[in-house]
Parts: sequence; C-alpha cells; structure tokens
Amino acid sequence: MDSNAENIHSIEVCFTPKLLSEILTKDHYVLALVDILRATTSICAAFDKGVKRILPVATLEEAKAMKEAGYLVASELDGQKLDFADFGNSAFNFTREAIGGKTLAYCTTNGTRALETAKSAGKVAIGAFINLSALTKWLVRQDRNVVILCSGWKNKFCLEDTLFAGALTDHLLKTRQFTTVCDSAAAALDLWRLARPDILGYIEKSAHRHRLKNLDLDDIIPYSFTIDSTSVVPVYESGEITNDQ
Amino acid sequence: MDSNAENIHSIEVCFTPKLLSEILTKDHYVLALVDILRATTSICAAFDKGVKRILPVATLEEAKAMKEAGYLVASELDGQKLDFADFGNSAFNFTREAIGGKTLAYCTTNGTRALETAKSAGKVAIGAFINLSALTKWLVRQDRNVVILCSGWKNKFCLEDTLFAGALTDHLLKTRQFTTVCDSAAAALDLWRLARPDILGYIEKSAHRHRLKNLDLDDIIPYSFTIDSTSVVPVYESGEITNDQ
Repeated sequence: MDSNAENIHSIEVCFTPKLLSEILTKDHYVLALVDILRATTSICAAFDKGVKRILPVATLEEAKAMKEAGYLVASELDGQKLDFADFGNSAFNFTREAIGGKTLAYCTTNGTRALETAKSAGKVAIGAFINLSALTKWLVRQDRNVVILCSGWKNKFCLEDTLFAGALTDHLLKTRQFTTVCDSAAAALDLWRLARPDILGYIEKSAHRHRLKNLDLDDIIPYSFTIDSTSVVPVYESGEITNDQ
Repeated sequence: MDSNAENIHSIEVCFTPKLLSEILTKDHYVLALVDILRATTSICAAFDKGVKRILPVATLEEAKAMKEAGYLVASELDGQKLDFADFGNSAFNFTREAIGGKTLAYCTTNGTRALETAKSAGKVAIGAFINLSALTKWLVRQDRNVVILCSGWKNKFCLEDTLFAGALTDHLLKTRQFTTVCDSAAAALDLWRLARPDILGYIEKSAHRHRLKNLDLDDIIPYSFTIDSTSVVPVYESGEITNDQ
C-alpha cells in the first residue's frame, strides 16, 4: 500500500446539526464546529483575550445557575444582555481585564445546540474566520478525517457558516493532506470562491445578517469575517472548552 | 395595501426532506419536488410519452403487489431492473407504445421518500430540467408561496438537485411574481449561475453522478440536464400523479 495515500483524509461538510447523523458514518473523524454569527467567533475572541476555559450552557436556566455558582456568565436573549449576566454574546464584550485567566459560562442558542449534537464525536474544534489558519494546522495535526459542522440557523442552512466551511475546505485541500468527494464541500468551496473577493458585499445576501441588523447588532460583521486575527484553537472536550493552540 | 405587493410570493429551498419540517411553517405554499438523477426526470419523461397516471410506491414489496394487481411496474435495485418489473427507473425505458394511456406504478428510493415527506403539503409538482419552463408557468398560476424540495441523496445535500433549485428560483424571480430571503435559495441561485455555462462539466463534481457512472447508468446524464424538452407538469395529489399541464 502506498504510504502517502494512507495519510490522505476526507473532508465532509454538514450544513446543519440536524443532518449530522446522516454524515457521521465513518470512524476516526474530528469535528470542526462553526457558528460565525456569533457563537464560535465569540468563543475564539474570548480565548484571544486570555479566557482560561469556557463552559458552554444550553439554556437560560443553566446560565443563571452558573452565575449563582460564582462563574462569569455571557448570556443574552434576542440580542440583549440578560440582567443576571456579566456579558452579552458578542465578541466585543470580552476584554483581557474582564476575562483573562478566568472561567466563563457561555450561553447561546445555535452554538450550544450544535455542540450538544457534536459532542458524541469526542474532540470538537471551534472554528471561525478569525482562527482559520490556526485551525487548519490543528486539524492537520489530528491526522484524521474532518467533518465541518455548520450550526446554521434554527436547523436550516445558512450562508455565513457555509462560506466558512468552503474557506476551511480550501485551506485543508491546499495542505495536500485531504481530499473530498462530498457534494456539500464542493458547493461550499464554490460559494467561498465566489464570495472571497468581496465577502462583506456577498454576505449582504445572508438572512441572518439582516436579523442582526434589525437587532442593531451588525457592528460585529467586519470583525467576524476578518481572517486570521488570532491563533487560538478552542477545543471542546468533556464538557469544557480550552485553548489547544 | 399595495395590491401588487399582495401578489408577490416567497421562494424557499429545502436541501433534503429531513429539513422540510423546519421550513414548512407558512400556510399557503405549493411544493415542487426534484430528484434530477433520476426519479423526477423519469416521471416527467413518462408523462411526455403519454402515461395516463403514475402511482408512486415506496418499497419493492409494494411494487410487487402492484404487479400482481395487474399494473405496469417500474422498479429496480442498484440500477438493475427487477425480474418481476416491466421497466427499470431510467427515463429511457419509457416509450409511447409501452406506456401511452396506461397507469404505471413507479418504485424509487429517494423520490418516493421525498414524496411521502411532502404529501402533507397537498399538491406537489414534479420538477426536472426537462420541464423547467412549464413548471414555472404552473407555479405562477398557483398564486402561492413556493417551497422547492430537493430529494438529495440519503437525506444529504446533493449538487444536481441544488442546481435545479437554483434554475427554478431564477425562472420564478424573472416572472417578478416572487421574491426570496432564503439563504438556501441564494446559495442554489449562485451555484446555478456558476454551473450554467457548462452544466455537464460542472456536474462532474457530483458524487451521485459518479455513483451512476460506476453502475454504468450515466447515459441518462445529458438528457437529465436538457432544459425544456417537454411541457408536461406532473402533479401528485391524493396518492397519484397526473399531468396538470
């Protein structure tokens, strides 16, 4: 057997957590989770600002309980920071002074649901445009097949996560350590190549971008589509996220 | 209220039947089902050759029972016509002599599963590249929101159905009777515009196209991507498909 061929791994893209069970039929994969607007971008931003670990929680009740237990908590509803919480969910909330060296409980709708779906996979890497190259290197080091899981929006396909899936597929293919025969990866790659010359212009099409605009939360958009502003690689394992850079 | 605005309907694209329940939250929609390789292309081809009605069946057992009840039956397994059946599932099987004026029981994996999922919607139109313009006109006449349901492949996203969803979205938008804020529709539209100049070249990326090639069934590809070779509009209602052109 050709020893080079043995080291080539596959890439599959899953457009929403609801489709993950259809894709995870192979052993020996590692999962990269993406929720560009905003959970995975915010989590990467928090590690960039020195947070020690993040405990993701799925519901407001859990978030409240974490606050009562003494943790810093990021939690919001419809874009508004909740009274009991220390932060909202935006990447812009996290400063080194506020979170450096600390543990943060992070509550979010889409991202946490995707993480819950994904956790059976073992290690889950947290991906965003801001850590694209660092994540690529980390995935190469795992020496496994990769499944890129888009959080989507309410279990539906969303453009911004798909563009990231295309960008990550592009980066992984360029290492020559990966190949793909997945239609979703092919589509994501083509959409990424189409969007890349003017990504902020392209993302104007995104329904979620308009939802954020209506909530007056779209100040985060340029930051969320900035490539490689950090080298952190947050990794979820056994209920907590730490930096495995 | 602007009376023109009242007549503008929405387009949503659903990439696999598994996501349909996330999308069908609005009343007053009509569904267009697509399975380019091969069920919906074959069904359009059968009506083009004068079949009177088609009874879709979900399992080989049902197909066998229909044969015993005296119906013409199209049924295959892994690309091979089954012994008890009159035809395989390819569009090329249907001649006017064999099926003109008759009732056909059609058994297929993907297409029938999608039809089962979709039937709660009421009327379901059967779409393929070969009846694209006729289907567009039919959908305009329904004066309702449209959901384009891709059959996909084993509940996963597939490129060829997505390209058709993009082509149909393009046609519907050009009538100025429709609008869309659906990310899946935006993605399908962009992929269609990318593929259109050389659709057979583009579809080389499709995993399912390679599955058909391996089964030696890819002779149907050029026919399946020929636009407007027929003006039939097969419509599924109350368990049977008839031509509502």
